[in-house]
Amino acid sequence: MAAELADQINKGLGHYDRLIGVSMTQVSDTSARAEVLVRDELKQPYGLVHGGVYASIAESLASWATAVGVRERGLAVGMSNNTSFLRPITEGTIRAQATRIHGGRTTWIWDVEFRDDENRLCAVTRMTIAVRPAEGLTPTS
Amino acid sequence: MAAELADQINKGLGHYDRLIGVSMTQVSDTSARAEVLVRDELKQPYGLVHGGVYASIAESLASWATAVGVRERGLAVGMSNNTSFLRPITEGTIRAQATRIHGGRTTWIWDVEFRDDENRLCAVTRMTIAVRPAEGLTPTS
Amino acid sequence: MAAELADQINKGLGHYDRLIGVSMTQVSDTSARAEVLVRDELKQPYGLVHGGVYASIAESLASWATAVGVRERGLAVGMSNNTSFLRPITEGTIRAQATRIHGGRTTWIWDVEFRDDENRLCAVTRMTIAVRPAEGLTPTS
Amino acid sequence: MAAELADQINKGLGHYDRLIGVSMTQVSDTSARAEVLVRDELKQPYGLVHGGVYASIAESLASWATAVGVRERGLAVGMSNNTSFLRPITEGTIRAQATRIHGGRTTWIWDVEFRDDENRLCAVTRMTIAVRPAEGLTPTS
Repeated sequence: MAAELADQINKGLGHYDRLIGVSMTQVSDTSARAEVLVRDELKQPYGLVHGGVYASIAESLASWATAVGVRERGLAVGMSNNTSFLRPITEGTIRAQATRIHGGRTTWIWDVEFRDDENRLCAVTRMTIAVRPAEGLTPTS
Repeated sequence: MAAELADQINKGLGHYDRLIGVSMTQVSDTSARAEVLVRDELKQPYGLVHGGVYASIAESLASWATAVGVRERGLAVGMSNNTSFLRPITEGTIRAQATRIHGGRTTWIWDVEFRDDENRLCAVTRMTIAVRPAEGLTPTS
Repeated sequence: MAAELADQINKGLGHYDRLIGVSMTQVSDTSARAEVLVRDELKQPYGLVHGGVYASIAESLASWATAVGVRERGLAVGMSNNTSFLRPITEGTIRAQATRIHGGRTTWIWDVEFRDDENRLCAVTRMTIAVRPAEGLTPTS
Repeated sequence: MAAELADQINKGLGHYDRLIGVSMTQVSDTSARAEVLVRDELKQPYGLVHGGVYASIAESLASWATAVGVRERGLAVGMSNNTSFLRPITEGTIRAQATRIHGGRTTWIWDVEFRDDENRLCAVTRMTIAVRPAEGLTPTS
Protein backbone atom coordinates (compact mmCIF):
# COMPACT_ATOMS: atom_id res chain seq x y z
CA MET A 1 0.00 0.00 0.00
CA ALA A 2 2.58 2.50 1.19
CA ALA A 3 4.90 1.45 -1.64
CA GLU A 4 2.13 1.76 -4.23
CA LEU A 5 1.31 5.18 -2.91
CA ALA A 6 4.99 6.08 -3.23
CA ASP A 7 4.90 5.01 -6.87
CA GLN A 8 1.89 7.22 -7.54
CA ILE A 9 3.54 10.16 -5.81
CA ASN A 10 6.79 9.67 -7.73
CA LYS A 11 4.80 10.05 -10.95
CA GLY A 12 3.27 13.29 -9.70
CA LEU A 13 6.38 14.78 -8.06
CA GLY A 14 6.85 18.50 -8.37
CA HIS A 15 9.50 20.07 -10.56
CA TYR A 16 11.81 20.73 -7.64
CA ASP A 17 11.74 17.13 -6.41
CA ARG A 18 12.82 16.08 -9.90
CA LEU A 19 15.59 18.69 -9.92
CA ILE A 20 16.99 17.28 -6.66
CA GLY A 21 16.32 13.69 -7.72
CA VAL A 22 13.99 12.61 -4.94
CA SER A 23 12.58 9.09 -5.23
CA MET A 24 9.93 8.12 -2.69
CA THR A 25 10.04 4.48 -1.66
CA GLN A 26 7.30 4.40 0.97
CA VAL A 27 4.65 6.93 1.98
CA SER A 28 1.90 6.75 4.58
CA ASP A 29 0.38 9.27 6.98
CA THR A 30 2.70 8.20 9.81
CA SER A 31 5.99 7.48 8.03
CA ALA A 32 7.70 7.93 4.70
CA ARG A 33 10.98 7.10 3.02
CA ALA A 34 12.93 8.50 0.09
CA GLU A 35 16.28 8.02 -1.59
CA VAL A 36 18.47 10.44 -3.46
CA LEU A 37 21.51 9.39 -5.44
CA VAL A 38 24.51 11.62 -4.74
CA ARG A 39 25.81 13.41 -7.84
CA ASP A 40 28.11 16.37 -8.37
CA GLU A 41 25.18 18.73 -8.89
CA LEU A 42 24.18 18.23 -5.23
CA LYS A 43 27.57 19.18 -3.81
CA GLN A 44 29.03 22.36 -2.36
CA PRO A 45 32.61 23.45 -3.13
CA TYR A 46 34.32 21.15 -0.58
CA GLY A 47 32.79 18.12 -2.35
CA LEU A 48 30.20 17.41 0.35
CA VAL A 49 26.46 17.09 -0.24
CA HIS A 50 25.07 20.63 0.26
CA GLY A 51 23.06 21.16 3.45
CA GLY A 52 20.15 22.47 1.42
CA VAL A 53 19.72 19.04 -0.13
CA TYR A 54 18.82 17.45 3.22
CA ALA A 55 16.47 20.30 4.08
CA SER A 56 14.81 19.95 0.67
CA ILE A 57 14.29 16.20 0.97
CA ALA A 58 12.85 16.56 4.48
CA GLU A 59 10.44 19.23 3.30
CA SER A 60 9.19 17.07 0.43
CA LEU A 61 8.83 13.89 2.49
CA ALA A 62 6.97 15.56 5.35
CA SER A 63 4.77 17.62 3.03
CA TRP A 64 3.76 14.64 0.91
CA ALA A 65 3.09 12.39 3.89
CA THR A 66 1.01 15.08 5.59
CA ALA A 67 -0.86 15.73 2.34
CA VAL A 68 -1.72 12.03 2.21
CA GLY A 69 -3.04 12.19 5.76
CA VAL A 70 -5.15 15.34 5.46
CA ARG A 71 -6.29 15.15 1.85
CA GLU A 72 -9.97 14.99 2.81
CA ARG A 73 -9.81 18.21 4.77
CA GLY A 74 -6.89 20.40 3.91
CA LEU A 75 -3.58 21.22 2.31
CA ALA A 76 -0.11 20.64 3.70
CA VAL A 77 2.15 23.72 3.73
CA GLY A 78 5.64 23.88 5.26
CA MET A 79 5.82 26.07 8.35
CA SER A 80 9.35 25.45 9.67
CA ASN A 81 12.30 23.26 8.76
CA ASN A 82 15.02 22.75 11.39
CA THR A 83 17.89 20.68 10.03
CA SER A 84 21.08 19.73 11.90
CA PHE A 85 24.13 18.33 10.10
CA LEU A 86 26.10 15.60 11.86
CA ARG A 87 28.38 14.01 9.30
CA PRO A 88 29.09 14.77 5.64
CA ILE A 89 28.07 12.53 2.75
CA THR A 90 30.23 12.56 -0.36
CA GLU A 91 29.01 9.60 -2.41
CA GLY A 92 26.46 6.79 -2.66
CA THR A 93 22.80 7.17 -1.77
CA ILE A 94 21.15 9.45 0.80
CA ARG A 95 18.42 7.50 2.60
CA ALA A 96 15.75 9.57 4.34
CA GLN A 97 13.22 8.24 6.84
CA ALA A 98 10.41 10.48 8.11
CA THR A 99 8.44 9.58 11.24
CA ARG A 100 5.42 11.54 12.39
CA ILE A 101 5.63 12.68 16.00
CA HIS A 102 2.49 14.84 16.07
CA GLY A 103 -0.67 14.80 13.96
CA GLY A 104 -2.80 17.69 15.15
CA ARG A 105 -5.71 19.58 13.68
CA THR A 106 -3.62 22.51 12.46
CA THR A 107 -0.03 21.24 12.53
CA TRP A 108 1.82 18.00 11.94
CA ILE A 109 5.39 17.49 13.12
CA TRP A 110 7.86 15.04 11.57
CA ASP A 111 11.32 13.84 12.48
CA VAL A 112 13.44 12.99 9.45
CA GLU A 113 16.69 11.03 9.67
CA PHE A 114 19.28 10.88 6.89
CA ARG A 115 21.67 7.96 6.60
CA ASP A 116 24.52 7.10 4.26
CA ASP A 117 25.39 3.75 2.63
CA GLU A 118 26.91 2.53 5.87
CA ASN A 119 23.72 3.40 7.76
CA ARG A 120 25.38 6.19 9.73
CA LEU A 121 23.17 9.06 10.86
CA CYS A 122 24.33 12.11 8.85
CA ALA A 123 21.59 14.72 9.35
CA VAL A 124 18.27 15.16 11.15
CA THR A 125 15.32 17.46 10.45
CA ARG A 126 12.40 18.48 12.63
CA MET A 127 9.74 19.64 10.20
CA THR A 128 6.49 21.39 11.10
CA ILE A 129 3.75 21.31 8.47
CA ALA A 130 0.70 23.54 8.69
CA VAL A 131 -2.64 22.03 7.69
CA ARG A 132 -4.58 24.75 5.86
CA PRO A 133 -8.23 24.65 4.81
CA ALA A 134 -8.43 23.44 1.21
CA GLU A 135 -9.99 26.60 -0.18
CA GLY A 136 -7.60 29.28 -1.29
CA LEU A 137 -4.75 27.18 -2.60
CA THR A 138 -5.06 24.94 -5.60
CA PRO A 139 -2.42 22.52 -6.76
CA THR A 140 -1.03 23.36 -10.15
CA SER A 141 0.00 19.84 -11.07
CA MET B 1 34.83 45.48 -2.45
CA ALA B 2 31.93 43.37 -1.29
CA ALA B 3 30.48 43.41 -4.81
CA GLU B 4 33.84 42.44 -6.36
CA LEU B 5 34.12 39.61 -3.88
CA ALA B 6 30.61 38.51 -4.87
CA ASP B 7 31.70 38.43 -8.51
CA GLN B 8 34.70 36.25 -7.66
CA ILE B 9 32.53 33.92 -5.61
CA ASN B 10 29.92 33.67 -8.37
CA LYS B 11 32.67 32.41 -10.68
CA GLY B 12 33.67 29.74 -8.16
CA LEU B 13 30.19 28.72 -7.02
CA GLY B 14 29.66 25.05 -6.29
CA HIS B 15 27.61 22.80 -8.49
CA TYR B 16 24.59 22.95 -6.24
CA ASP B 17 24.48 26.75 -6.18
CA ARG B 18 24.41 26.64 -9.97
CA LEU B 19 21.63 24.05 -9.94
CA ILE B 20 19.51 26.33 -7.74
CA GLY B 21 20.56 29.44 -9.63
CA VAL B 22 22.12 31.42 -6.79
CA SER B 23 23.69 34.72 -7.76
CA MET B 24 25.63 36.54 -5.02
CA THR B 25 25.41 40.33 -5.23
CA GLN B 26 27.37 41.31 -2.14
CA VAL B 27 29.54 39.31 0.26
CA SER B 28 31.53 40.39 3.31
CA ASP B 29 32.26 38.76 6.67
CA THR B 30 29.32 40.54 8.33
CA SER B 31 26.64 40.55 5.62
CA ALA B 32 25.85 39.04 2.25
CA ARG B 33 23.15 39.19 -0.40
CA ALA B 34 21.99 36.90 -3.16
CA GLU B 35 19.23 36.70 -5.73
CA VAL B 36 17.49 33.73 -7.28
CA LEU B 37 15.14 34.02 -10.22
CA VAL B 38 11.96 31.98 -9.67
CA ARG B 39 11.46 29.29 -12.31
CA ASP B 40 9.25 26.21 -12.51
CA GLU B 41 12.11 23.93 -11.48
CA LEU B 42 12.15 25.55 -8.03
CA LYS B 43 8.46 24.94 -7.34
CA GLN B 44 6.55 22.31 -5.42
CA PRO B 45 3.26 20.87 -6.74
CA TYR B 46 1.03 23.76 -5.55
CA GLY B 47 3.08 26.15 -7.68
CA LEU B 48 4.90 27.79 -4.76
CA VAL B 49 8.67 28.06 -4.41
CA HIS B 50 9.74 24.89 -2.52
CA GLY B 51 10.82 25.45 1.09
CA GLY B 52 14.11 23.70 0.40
CA VAL B 53 15.06 26.52 -1.95
CA TYR B 54 15.11 29.07 0.88
CA ALA B 55 17.05 26.72 3.14
CA SER B 56 19.56 26.10 0.34
CA ILE B 57 20.13 29.78 -0.38
CA ALA B 58 20.58 30.57 3.33
CA GLU B 59 23.10 27.76 3.69
CA SER B 60 25.15 29.00 0.74
CA LEU B 61 25.10 32.66 1.75
CA ALA B 62 26.06 32.01 5.36
CA SER B 63 28.70 29.44 4.43
CA TRP B 64 30.36 31.69 1.85
CA ALA B 65 30.31 34.75 4.08
CA THR B 66 31.76 32.79 7.00
CA ALA B 67 34.39 31.27 4.71
CA VAL B 68 35.40 34.79 3.68
CA GLY B 69 35.73 35.76 7.34
CA VAL B 70 37.73 32.78 8.57
CA ARG B 71 39.78 31.87 5.50
CA GLU B 72 43.07 32.46 7.29
CA ARG B 73 42.30 30.00 10.04
CA GLY B 74 39.60 27.52 9.15
CA LEU B 75 36.79 26.14 7.06
CA ALA B 76 33.09 26.96 7.26
CA VAL B 77 30.79 23.95 7.61
CA GLY B 78 27.02 24.11 8.14
CA MET B 79 25.93 22.97 11.60
CA SER B 80 22.22 23.81 11.68
CA ASN B 81 19.70 25.50 9.41
CA ASN B 82 16.42 26.67 10.96
CA THR B 83 14.08 28.11 8.34
CA SER B 84 10.56 29.45 8.93
CA PHE B 85 8.14 30.10 6.05
CA LEU B 86 5.91 33.17 6.32
CA ARG B 87 4.44 33.82 2.88
CA PRO B 88 4.70 31.93 -0.43
CA ILE B 89 6.54 33.23 -3.47
CA THR B 90 5.27 32.16 -6.89
CA GLU B 91 7.12 34.43 -9.32
CA GLY B 92 9.76 37.11 -9.75
CA THR B 93 13.03 37.19 -7.85
CA ILE B 94 13.84 35.87 -4.37
CA ARG B 95 16.09 38.37 -2.60
CA ALA B 96 18.11 37.05 0.33
CA GLN B 97 19.96 39.18 2.86
CA ALA B 98 22.23 37.54 5.44
CA THR B 99 23.35 39.43 8.56
CA ARG B 100 25.88 38.03 11.01
CA ILE B 101 24.68 38.03 14.59
CA HIS B 102 27.60 36.14 16.15
CA GLY B 103 31.19 35.65 15.01
CA GLY B 104 32.80 33.35 17.54
CA ARG B 105 35.92 31.24 17.55
CA THR B 106 34.11 27.99 16.77
CA THR B 107 30.68 29.07 15.49
CA TRP B 108 29.19 31.91 13.48
CA ILE B 109 25.45 32.59 13.48
CA TRP B 110 23.59 34.35 10.67
CA ASP B 111 20.07 35.63 10.22
CA VAL B 112 18.85 35.44 6.64
CA GLU B 113 15.74 37.24 5.39
CA PHE B 114 13.99 36.42 2.13
CA ARG B 115 11.87 39.03 0.35
CA ASP B 116 9.77 39.02 -2.81
CA ASP B 117 9.52 41.66 -5.54
CA GLU B 118 7.24 43.75 -3.35
CA ASN B 119 9.79 43.64 -0.51
CA ARG B 120 7.56 41.50 1.71
CA LEU B 121 9.27 39.20 4.20
CA CYS B 122 8.55 35.64 2.98
CA ALA B 123 10.95 33.42 4.94
CA VAL B 124 13.66 33.69 7.59
CA THR B 125 16.59 31.40 8.41
CA ARG B 126 18.78 31.21 11.48
CA MET B 127 21.94 29.49 10.31
CA THR B 128 24.77 28.22 12.52
CA ILE B 129 28.11 27.62 10.80
CA ALA B 130 30.91 25.69 12.48
CA VAL B 131 34.45 26.95 11.99
CA ARG B 132 36.68 23.90 11.64
CA PRO B 133 40.49 23.83 11.61
CA ALA B 134 41.65 23.88 8.00
CA GLU B 135 43.42 20.52 8.06
CA GLY B 136 41.26 17.53 7.23
CA LEU B 137 38.98 19.04 4.64
CA THR B 138 40.19 20.32 1.30
CA PRO B 139 38.00 22.14 -1.17
CA THR B 140 37.52 20.24 -4.39
CA SER B 141 36.85 23.25 -6.57
CA MET C 1 0.99 53.43 26.31
CA ALA C 2 3.31 50.49 25.88
CA ALA C 3 4.84 51.19 29.28
CA GLU C 4 1.42 51.46 30.93
CA LEU C 5 0.44 48.19 29.34
CA ALA C 6 3.64 46.65 30.69
CA ASP C 7 2.67 47.81 34.18
CA GLN C 8 -0.76 46.22 33.86
CA ILE C 9 0.78 42.98 32.61
CA ASN C 10 3.34 42.93 35.41
CA LYS C 11 0.47 43.00 37.90
CA GLY C 12 -1.18 40.04 36.19
CA LEU C 13 1.96 38.00 35.49
CA GLY C 14 1.63 34.25 35.80
CA HIS C 15 3.18 32.28 38.62
CA TYR C 16 6.09 31.15 36.49
CA ASP C 17 7.04 34.67 35.40
CA ARG C 18 7.22 35.58 39.08
CA LEU C 19 9.35 32.53 39.84
CA ILE C 20 11.86 33.60 37.17
CA GLY C 21 11.57 37.26 38.09
CA VAL C 22 10.39 38.66 34.76
CA SER C 23 9.62 42.39 34.75
CA MET C 24 8.05 43.76 31.55
CA THR C 25 9.13 47.30 30.72
CA GLN C 26 7.33 47.81 27.40
CA VAL C 27 4.69 45.75 25.58
CA SER C 28 2.89 46.35 22.29
CA ASP C 29 1.72 44.07 19.49
CA THR C 30 4.93 44.63 17.50
CA SER C 31 7.62 44.80 20.19
CA ALA C 32 8.15 44.13 23.86
CA ARG C 33 10.90 44.40 26.46
CA ALA C 34 11.61 42.76 29.77
CA GLU C 35 14.35 42.69 32.38
CA VAL C 36 15.42 39.94 34.75
CA LEU C 37 17.88 40.51 37.57
CA VAL C 38 20.50 37.74 37.70
CA ARG C 39 20.47 35.84 40.99
CA ASP C 40 21.95 32.52 42.11
CA GLU C 41 18.62 30.75 41.66
CA LEU C 42 18.83 31.32 37.89
CA LYS C 43 22.27 29.73 37.51
CA GLN C 44 23.51 26.33 36.46
CA PRO C 45 26.41 24.62 38.23
CA TYR C 46 29.20 26.50 36.34
CA GLY C 47 27.80 29.78 37.67
CA LEU C 48 26.29 30.90 34.35
CA VAL C 49 22.66 31.89 33.83
CA HIS C 50 20.87 28.65 32.86
CA GLY C 51 19.82 28.41 29.20
CA GLY C 52 16.26 27.69 30.23
CA VAL C 53 16.02 31.19 31.69
CA TYR C 54 16.45 32.81 28.27
CA ALA C 55 13.97 30.42 26.68
CA SER C 56 11.48 31.16 29.46
CA ILE C 57 11.76 34.94 29.12
CA ALA C 58 11.37 34.74 25.33
CA GLU C 59 8.29 32.58 25.67
CA SER C 60 6.66 35.01 28.12
CA LEU C 61 7.49 38.13 26.13
CA ALA C 62 6.29 36.75 22.81
CA SER C 63 3.17 35.19 24.33
CA TRP C 64 2.14 38.37 26.13
CA ALA C 65 2.80 40.61 23.16
CA THR C 66 0.85 38.29 20.84
CA ALA C 67 -1.98 38.08 23.37
CA VAL C 68 -2.16 41.88 23.36
CA GLY C 69 -2.38 41.86 19.57
CA VAL C 70 -5.02 39.14 19.14
CA ARG C 71 -7.12 39.60 22.28
CA GLU C 72 -10.25 40.40 20.28
CA ARG C 73 -10.12 37.17 18.36
CA GLY C 74 -8.02 34.51 19.99
CA LEU C 75 -5.52 33.16 22.47
CA ALA C 76 -1.75 33.06 22.16
CA VAL C 77 -0.18 29.63 22.73
CA GLY C 78 3.50 28.80 22.28
CA MET C 79 4.22 26.54 19.31
CA SER C 80 8.01 26.48 19.12
CA ASN C 81 10.91 28.13 20.91
CA ASN C 82 14.33 28.08 19.22
CA THR C 83 17.00 29.63 21.41
CA SER C 84 20.72 29.94 20.59
CA PHE C 85 23.30 30.80 23.23
CA LEU C 86 26.15 33.11 22.21
CA ARG C 87 27.84 34.34 25.39
CA PRO C 88 27.27 33.52 29.05
CA ILE C 89 25.86 36.00 31.57
CA THR C 90 26.97 35.67 35.19
CA GLU C 91 25.75 38.86 36.86
CA GLY C 92 23.80 42.08 36.44
CA THR C 93 20.56 42.34 34.48
CA ILE C 94 19.37 40.33 31.49
CA ARG C 95 17.69 42.69 29.01
CA ALA C 96 15.33 41.09 26.51
CA GLN C 97 13.92 42.79 23.43
CA ALA C 98 11.25 41.04 21.32
CA THR C 99 10.49 42.20 17.78
CA ARG C 100 7.62 40.79 15.72
CA ILE C 101 8.68 39.53 12.31
CA HIS C 102 5.36 37.98 11.27
CA GLY C 103 1.79 38.64 12.38
CA GLY C 104 -0.40 36.13 10.53
CA ARG C 105 -3.89 34.85 11.02
CA THR C 106 -2.82 31.62 12.72
CA THR C 107 0.81 32.22 13.74
CA TRP C 108 2.95 35.11 14.94
CA ILE C 109 6.74 34.92 14.87
CA TRP C 110 9.05 36.93 17.14
CA ASP C 111 12.79 37.47 17.33
CA VAL C 112 14.04 38.01 20.86
CA GLU C 113 17.51 39.35 21.67
CA PHE C 114 19.14 39.10 25.08
CA ARG C 115 21.84 41.55 26.14
CA ASP C 116 23.99 41.96 29.25
CA ASP C 117 24.90 45.12 31.14
CA GLU C 118 27.52 45.95 28.53
CA ASN C 119 24.92 45.63 25.76
CA ARG C 120 26.56 42.53 24.29
CA LEU C 121 24.29 40.07 22.47
CA CYS C 122 24.24 36.92 24.65
CA ALA C 123 21.34 34.84 23.30
CA VAL C 124 18.67 34.96 20.60
CA THR C 125 15.29 33.25 20.34
CA ARG C 126 13.01 32.70 17.38
CA MET C 127 9.60 32.11 18.88
CA THR C 128 6.47 30.95 17.02
CA ILE C 129 3.15 31.60 18.72
CA ALA C 130 -0.07 29.94 17.55
CA VAL C 131 -3.22 32.04 17.58
CA ARG C 132 -6.05 29.77 18.69
CA PRO C 133 -9.78 30.55 18.62
CA ALA C 134 -10.79 31.88 22.02
CA GLU C 135 -13.22 29.09 22.86
CA GLY C 136 -11.75 26.08 24.55
CA LEU C 137 -9.10 27.71 26.69
CA THR C 138 -9.88 30.09 29.49
CA PRO C 139 -7.28 31.98 31.47
CA THR C 140 -7.15 30.97 35.10
CA SER C 141 -5.76 34.26 36.39
CA MET D 1 24.77 2.54 37.64
CA ALA D 2 22.74 5.09 35.70
CA ALA D 3 20.34 5.40 38.64
CA GLU D 4 23.20 5.79 41.15
CA LEU D 5 24.71 8.45 38.95
CA ALA D 6 21.33 10.20 38.88
CA ASP D 7 21.29 10.19 42.68
CA GLN D 8 24.74 11.75 42.83
CA ILE D 9 23.73 14.40 40.29
CA ASN D 10 20.53 15.19 42.15
CA LYS D 11 22.63 15.98 45.22
CA GLY D 12 24.80 18.35 43.18
CA LEU D 13 22.05 19.96 41.09
CA GLY D 14 22.44 23.65 40.34
CA HIS D 15 20.28 26.31 41.90
CA TYR D 16 18.08 26.62 38.85
CA ASP D 17 17.31 22.91 38.67
CA ARG D 18 16.15 23.13 42.27
CA LEU D 19 14.02 26.18 41.49
CA ILE D 20 12.26 24.27 38.70
CA GLY D 21 12.14 21.06 40.74
CA VAL D 22 14.09 18.75 38.42
CA SER D 23 14.68 15.25 39.72
CA MET D 24 16.97 13.04 37.63
CA THR D 25 16.01 9.37 37.65
CA GLN D 26 18.59 7.98 35.24
CA VAL D 27 21.70 9.47 33.64
CA SER D 28 24.27 7.99 31.27
CA ASP D 29 26.23 9.35 28.34
CA THR D 30 23.63 8.09 25.84
CA SER D 31 20.32 8.64 27.64
CA ALA D 32 18.87 10.34 30.67
CA ARG D 33 15.54 10.77 32.40
CA ALA D 34 14.05 13.31 34.77
CA GLU D 35 10.73 14.07 36.41
CA VAL D 36 9.18 17.33 37.47
CA LEU D 37 6.05 17.56 39.57
CA VAL D 38 3.60 20.11 38.17
CA ARG D 39 2.84 22.93 40.63
CA ASP D 40 1.28 26.36 40.25
CA GLU D 41 4.67 28.06 40.18
CA LEU D 42 5.43 26.37 36.85
CA LYS D 43 2.28 27.62 35.11
CA GLN D 44 1.52 30.51 32.79
CA PRO D 45 -1.69 32.54 33.13
CA TYR D 46 -3.95 30.05 31.25
CA GLY D 47 -3.09 27.39 33.83
CA LEU D 48 -0.81 25.39 31.52
CA VAL D 49 2.77 24.43 32.29
CA HIS D 50 4.90 27.30 30.88
CA GLY D 51 6.88 26.46 27.73
CA GLY D 52 10.07 27.60 29.40
CA VAL D 53 9.77 24.72 31.86
CA TYR D 54 10.18 22.13 29.09
CA ALA D 55 13.09 24.03 27.57
CA SER D 56 14.73 24.26 30.99
CA ILE D 57 14.39 20.56 31.74
CA ALA D 58 15.77 19.61 28.32
CA GLU D 59 18.75 21.90 28.78
CA SER D 60 19.56 20.40 32.18
CA LEU D 61 19.16 16.78 31.09
CA ALA D 62 21.26 17.14 27.95
CA SER D 63 23.92 19.22 29.68
CA TRP D 64 24.31 16.78 32.57
CA ALA D 65 24.37 13.72 30.35
CA THR D 66 26.94 15.30 28.04
CA ALA D 67 29.01 16.40 31.05
CA VAL D 68 29.02 12.78 32.23
CA GLY D 69 30.24 11.66 28.81
CA VAL D 70 33.00 14.22 28.30
CA ARG D 71 34.19 14.79 31.85
CA GLU D 72 37.69 13.58 31.11
CA ARG D 73 38.20 16.07 28.34
CA GLY D 74 35.88 19.01 28.47
CA LEU D 75 32.88 20.93 29.67
CA ALA D 76 29.32 20.79 28.35
CA VAL D 77 27.80 24.15 27.42
CA GLY D 78 24.39 24.67 25.79
CA MET D 79 24.61 25.89 22.21
CA SER D 80 20.98 25.73 21.00
CA ASN D 81 17.65 24.58 22.39
CA ASN D 82 14.81 23.98 19.93
CA THR D 83 11.59 23.05 21.70
CA SER D 84 8.20 22.36 20.07
CA PHE D 85 4.98 22.23 22.08
CA LEU D 86 2.41 19.62 21.10
CA ARG D 87 -0.09 19.34 23.92
CA PRO D 88 -0.49 21.23 27.20
CA ILE D 89 0.10 19.70 30.63
CA THR D 90 -1.89 21.08 33.55
CA GLU D 91 -1.29 18.59 36.35
CA GLY D 92 0.57 15.48 37.46
CA THR D 93 4.19 14.76 36.61
CA ILE D 94 6.22 15.81 33.55
CA ARG D 95 8.38 12.90 32.45
CA ALA D 96 11.39 13.75 30.29
CA GLN D 97 13.49 11.26 28.35
CA ALA D 98 16.68 12.38 26.59
CA THR D 99 18.30 10.25 23.89
CA ARG D 100 21.65 11.10 22.35
CA ILE D 101 21.59 11.22 18.55
CA HIS D 102 25.11 12.53 18.00
CA GLY D 103 28.25 12.38 20.14
CA GLY D 104 30.95 14.29 18.27
CA ARG D 105 34.24 15.80 19.24
CA THR D 106 32.89 19.35 19.53
CA THR D 107 29.11 18.93 19.70
CA TRP D 108 26.61 16.47 21.13
CA ILE D 109 22.97 16.46 20.01
CA TRP D 110 20.07 15.15 22.10
CA ASP D 111 16.39 14.53 21.45
CA VAL D 112 14.24 15.03 24.52
CA GLU D 113 10.63 13.85 24.75
CA PHE D 114 8.16 15.06 27.39
CA ARG D 115 5.19 12.94 28.40
CA ASP D 116 2.29 13.41 30.78
CA ASP D 117 0.78 10.93 33.26
CA GLU D 118 -1.09 9.22 30.42
CA ASN D 119 2.15 8.81 28.46
CA ARG D 120 1.09 11.25 25.75
CA LEU D 121 3.85 13.14 23.93
CA CYS D 122 3.45 16.80 24.99
CA ALA D 123 6.68 18.49 23.87
CA VAL D 124 9.97 17.67 22.14
CA THR D 125 13.37 19.36 22.27
CA ARG D 126 16.36 19.08 19.99
CA MET D 127 19.29 20.23 22.08
CA THR D 128 22.82 20.91 20.84
CA ILE D 129 25.56 20.95 23.47
CA ALA D 130 29.03 22.30 22.75
CA VAL D 131 31.98 20.42 24.23
CA ARG D 132 34.53 23.04 25.30
CA PRO D 133 38.11 22.44 26.46
CA ALA D 134 38.13 22.26 30.25
CA GLU D 135 40.39 25.26 30.83
CA GLY D 136 38.66 28.60 31.08
CA LEU D 137 35.49 27.58 32.85
CA THR D 138 35.39 26.19 36.36
CA PRO D 139 32.28 24.86 38.01
CA THR D 140 31.22 26.92 40.98
CA SER D 141 29.41 24.17 42.84
